[in-house]
Amino acid sequence: MKLSRLEQQMHFIEEMDQLKKIGRQTYLSDSSRKENDAEHSWHLALMCMLLQEHANEPIDPYRTMCMVLIHDLIEIDAGDTYAYDDAGNQTKREREVKAANRIFNLLPKDQAVYMRELWEEFERAETNEAKFALALDKIQPTMLNHASNGKAWEEHEIKISQVIKRNSSTKEGSEDLWDYALEHFIEPSVKAGKLIEDRQ
Amino acid sequence: MKLSRLEQQMHFIEEMDQLKKIGRQTYLSDSSRKENDAEHSWHLALMCMLLQEHANEPIDPYRTMCMVLIHDLIEIDAGDTYAYDDAGNQTKREREVKAANRIFNLLPKDQAVYMRELWEEFERAETNEAKFALALDKIQPTMLNHASNGKAWEEHEIKISQVIKRNSSTKEGSEDLWDYALEHFIEPSVKAGKLIEDRQ
Ligand SMILES: [Ca+2]
Repeated sequence: MKLSRLEQQMHFIEEMDQLKKIGRQTYLSDSSRKENDAEHSWHLALMCMLLQEHANEPIDPYRTMCMVLIHDLIEIDAGDTYAYDDAGNQTKREREVKAANRIFNLLPKDQAVYMRELWEEFERAETNEAKFALALDKIQPTMLNHASNGKAWEEHEIKISQVIKRNSSTKEGSEDLWDYALEHFIEPSVKAGKLIEDRQ
Repeated sequence: MKLSRLEQQMHFIEEMDQLKKIGRQTYLSDSSRKENDAEHSWHLALMCMLLQEHANEPIDPYRTMCMVLIHDLIEIDAGDTYAYDDAGNQTKREREVKAANRIFNLLPKDQAVYMRELWEEFERAETNEAKFALALDKIQPTMLNHASNGKAWEEHEIKISQVIKRNSSTKEGSEDLWDYALEHFIEPSVKAGKLIEDRQ
């Protein structure tokens, strides 16, 4: 049976409900539990709305917002790969492309193409929009890790050098946000012993 | 101590993390648990992205998306008022205005005004953007209630007349989406005995 355009769209929207069950390693600010991908994506969109003036270069806010809203949809199939899981990150791209091939193609052709392009743009991190979206995607868990007293960092015994490396591209999206994160979230967490100091 | 603009913005974004803890009555599509306001807001934004072509009148997608992303922030103070809680709905406006006064004013003045206007626009449901945002806000739980086999409707012994009344304005945002919801979510739920039939 051929589905109507609206049926295809609604089926997709209903299936994407599963994003609410994809867990991340980051705790909520009150440490009560870990957050999920849907909550994380909402938080990034709110940040995009309020922080766009801090992007290094002018961005199209609507395109950037769409990008953060959909950047993790592929994790419904591929799962969340923790930033500091080296083995997981080696197979990440392959798993995510397979997921993208299935998930985005649930949509009507034009929207499938649009979504795929948005996601690939985010992954390539070359446009102003993608660089800023990526900066938000890195700053948000840093903010929550600090707010939750470094709980996730402690559990995984994360070193400051790993956080700096992980954030190597953050300043390409926003120097202001990177400076802020370093001063308000990262260095205080090193001082408090929540991040392991391994710099010379 | 006077906070810098960026400090004010980041404090707000961190405080809004609490939206992830404001529970709703609607179950996830797999019935495993109820959803929260942050997840719900993300879902509406995704719907806005994919379903805007079904709005009765042309809408500004960015403004509509911002509206759905922030429409429930006041519930951090005011709590979620269940659609079919008559007593709660009598005090809702008063509680929410008080919440709006505190929450939006955490932001720098220009952004506080922008947020407040967006929220009031949503509440008044007069612009094309607000009418469509409101339609999404009604269709999304209807979709999830159907997907979760009417679990929340059964728990609260909801009648079809209540759902129809609750959705009286949905068709003003999108006749297509209302027709779809009626045919695919609501009438099948009456047939399955999940919604109580009380029409003549
Ligand atoms: Ca991710």
